[in-house]
Amino acid sequence: MRKSELSSYLSFAKKLINVSEKIVKQNTPSKIKVNFKIDRSPVTKIDMQVEKSLRKLISQKYPEHGIFGEEYQNKNLQSEFIWVIDPIDGTKNFINGNGNYGTLLALCHQGVPIIGIINCPQLKKRWIGIKNHGAFCNNQKLKKVSSNQSLKELFFSTSGMTAYQDSSKNRKYRSLAKKTQYITFGGDCVQYGLLAEKRIPFVVESFLKPFDYLPLVNIIEETGGIITDWHGKSLNFNSNGDVVASISAKAHKQFLKL
Amino acid sequence: MRKSELSSYLSFAKKLINVSEKIVKQNTPSKIKVNFKIDRSPVTKIDMQVEKSLRKLISQKYPEHGIFGEEYQNKNLQSEFIWVIDPIDGTKNFINGNGNYGTLLALCHQGVPIIGIINCPQLKKRWIGIKNHGAFCNNQKLKKVSSNQSLKELFFSTSGMTAYQDSSKNRKYRSLAKKTQYITFGGDCVQYGLLAEKRIPFVVESFLKPFDYLPLVNIIEETGGIITDWHGKSLNFNSNGDVVASISAKAHKQFLKL
Repeated sequence: MRKSELSSYLSFAKKLINVSEKIVKQNTPSKIKVNFKIDRSPVTKIDMQVEKSLRKLISQKYPEHGIFGEEYQNKNLQSEFIWVIDPIDGTKNFINGNGNYGTLLALCHQGVPIIGIINCPQLKKRWIGIKNHGAFCNNQKLKKVSSNQSLKELFFSTSGMTAYQDSSKNRKYRSLAKKTQYITFGGDCVQYGLLAEKRIPFVVESFLKPFDYLPLVNIIEETGGIITDWHGKSLNFNSNGDVVASISAKAHKQFLKL
Repeated sequence: MRKSELSSYLSFAKKLINVSEKIVKQNTPSKIKVNFKIDRSPVTKIDMQVEKSLRKLISQKYPEHGIFGEEYQNKNLQSEFIWVIDPIDGTKNFINGNGNYGTLLALCHQGVPIIGIINCPQLKKRWIGIKNHGAFCNNQKLKKVSSNQSLKELFFSTSGMTAYQDSSKNRKYRSLAKKTQYITFGGDCVQYGLLAEKRIPFVVESFLKPFDYLPLVNIIEETGGIITDWHGKSLNFNSNGDVVASISAKAHKQFLKL
């Protein structure tokens, strides 16, 4: 892809994220009714409103592009380009007010993410990753570095989705908890931005959807991190939703073997 | 206690919190070495520095008062007045940068909290409760209201300290998870401020220390909430560290019976 073409997609992606931020800031979730989806996860009117607005803008500008979003039906998934939208990642934190939520956006070319954005209005953080062109936090370029830590030297972060459940996934989390220093909980999309900044060394999640993980790929890889499924495979639209991200190849390998 | 006496303690408490905020803001934990305490919990130089500074100011102003803090030895615990300090509650979040940490301060009179403060510099939130005189968030008085929700109508928040561990406490968390809508994780002290604002309806924790829970009491009670141990008893210096806070007396009772 020519650099000028990538640039125009990037400007458009930034425009979309600015629109999402405006909608989120105009609404206080404390006064918004919370509904529940079939999987019992909460959703607000703001989630719907953000996604609807972004879909409309994409369809106007690039009518042939595909759209893969959380709240509405997917569109043109056979297209060369697919926009991936999670209007509010961390809806539970959005509702409770602790600030750890954000809008996620990716552009995929032939199934591979080439632009990824995590935008967190309350924390005032915007992380952007561009395939082969680096990653940025609030417009400042992030260094591309990795560590050589082993699991026992680091802590890990997770949203804790399966904690206190009889989930078979928990075997892996329990093993990891025993082999690491400690756990921090509840960061949702914020975790990956902090991993790109080397504040968090390791993140593990399960039951994610493509709109939860595809926007993270460029941000993490362009800062020297690794993000794969629990078998070490690259993430794509057909991944099973188990995700591990790390700043250390060594720790990453140790996790895969747990 | 005369109102003027209470007022002067309150002004002094605010002064202490301002000092703590200044120290926290001057330091970026991303560059600070993290050490581990005997219980494997992390601690930074900033934790130590905040507590040291507040202790010095208290000892100068009220040399006869007691001090109960996280990082240094307790002092004059037979005194009528005891200051309770948690220099950084949520140290793990402080280190990883997600914003959910704060400085906690209480003044106890004959063992009962009469002033409590939760101060969260990164979230720009300061909650203050004064026994029989209301509670405030960023100087705005919070309404004293409660709900009549039952457990099945609400979600709960916890720091997740025992998740993925074989802790006997987990029986209670698992029962609660089954009876409520969903769990949010990782709020630490922020959870209780959001409970006072009615953004979070229910918080459950275990293994807390007096400096973790005594500063919360006035903030929660003065906004119509309930905070007790897991047997429904009022919190004091000798409580066992299992804490439950709620905006609903009904849900609170249901929890005690789980």
